[in-house]
Amino acid sequence: MAQASIDGRRLRGDESRRGILAHAVDTASVDGLDGLTIGRLADAAGHSKSGVATLFGSKEQLQLAVVAAAREIFIDTVVAPARAETERGLSRVCVLLTNWLDYSRDRVFRGGCFFAATSVEYDSKPGAVRDAIIAASSEWEDYLTASIEYALAAGQLPALDDARQLTFEFVSFLEAANTRSLLYSSAEPYGRASTALRSRLRALGAEPGLIAAIGMPRAV
Amino acid sequence: MAQASIDGRRLRGDESRRGILAHAVDTASVDGLDGLTIGRLADAAGHSKSGVATLFGSKEQLQLAVVAAAREIFIDTVVAPARAETERGLSRVCVLLTNWLDYSRDRVFRGGCFFAATSVEYDSKPGAVRDAIIAASSEWEDYLTASIEYALAAGQLPALDDARQLTFEFVSFLEAANTRSLLYSSAEPYGRASTALRSRLRALGAEPGLIAAIGMPRAV
Repeated sequence: MAQASIDGRRLRGDESRRGILAHAVDTASVDGLDGLTIGRLADAAGHSKSGVATLFGSKEQLQLAVVAAAREIFIDTVVAPARAETERGLSRVCVLLTNWLDYSRDRVFRGGCFFAATSVEYDSKPGAVRDAIIAASSEWEDYLTASIEYALAAGQLPALDDARQLTFEFVSFLEAANTRSLLYSSAEPYGRASTALRSRLRALGAEPGLIAAIGMPRAV
Repeated sequence: MAQASIDGRRLRGDESRRGILAHAVDTASVDGLDGLTIGRLADAAGHSKSGVATLFGSKEQLQLAVVAAAREIFIDTVVAPARAETERGLSRVCVLLTNWLDYSRDRVFRGGCFFAATSVEYDSKPGAVRDAIIAASSEWEDYLTASIEYALAAGQLPALDDARQLTFEFVSFLEAANTRSLLYSSAEPYGRASTALRSRLRALGAEPGLIAAIGMPRAV
């Protein structure tokens, strides 16, 4: 009975935590992680300030929980479907890039890519929050690089000599499209990025049929 | 005599304004434009809050003055030297790109490129401040596009068909290098961006001798 009561409390706590985090990741994508305060989140969620503080602890612990929640959403939206739907190699690279563009264009986070926003917010602010943002961003870039290396090993990118360099170029296009589409309230930058991605892959000798769908709206 | 006294006051006002703005652009490049307050700037400059308010007016007027000051620094550092030193065409394009990389690497603003930082901060916040950031960024991109078009018209980029597309790709590389160099406290991203810029221009048929110096430290 005592155990059931504790489990019930924990469950309600988990639900509250999830609800508050969902609101917090969205808010942080617009106003930044530094603008998150326990007080403001409590107001928005209709909880007491002390209740939210009990769930998350310090402001830094809250920010770290928000980065972790954003990382999971990113993986579920961009990486996991590509892993489920495609074989390793160039097809997976193309789906990863398309999923990223969709993730930004669909405003999975209200302020566009959470990591594009918070990377710039924290690029000059060393500390645990920046380390968590770096870890999540590196994980994505490492996964994209590994996928490119599979395509390279399979002979699908004959003119490529440096997968890491190509990852730098790809994420440059993706993040620029994200920022510009928000700044100009326009979908045109996604077209620019798609053109850049396709022409870069074409120059590396990729099969045209495989790369044609990059950045195209996907059939559901 | 009255006139001299007014002129003297105006002169001291101009000096105070310049000093406060120099501090404010630097601070905003790290903490964002939204973090600027009349009170904090007054503390940092050793002025009274009402004195700073008299010089700048509202917080939004202060933010707009900061964007205008950052625009002037950007033009003086990146654009004006390229105009003075080179002829129109591919040489000028190469010097513009190199100057931009130097401007970011030299931390002309403590938090790296002022416009890369504030574009992302304001991309989801419509209003006069965002409009001013958009105007300054567009001015730079238009100038780069016009410079590319001169190179195109002069036959220096035989395989290019869309100067605006190339500008998108170039600024993608520049801004990604800026953010990553800050985030990872590393100069490597400038090498990545330089490689990307040169290989893109090479693929468009640019004379190798003209593009070799992109991103190289410049002789003083």
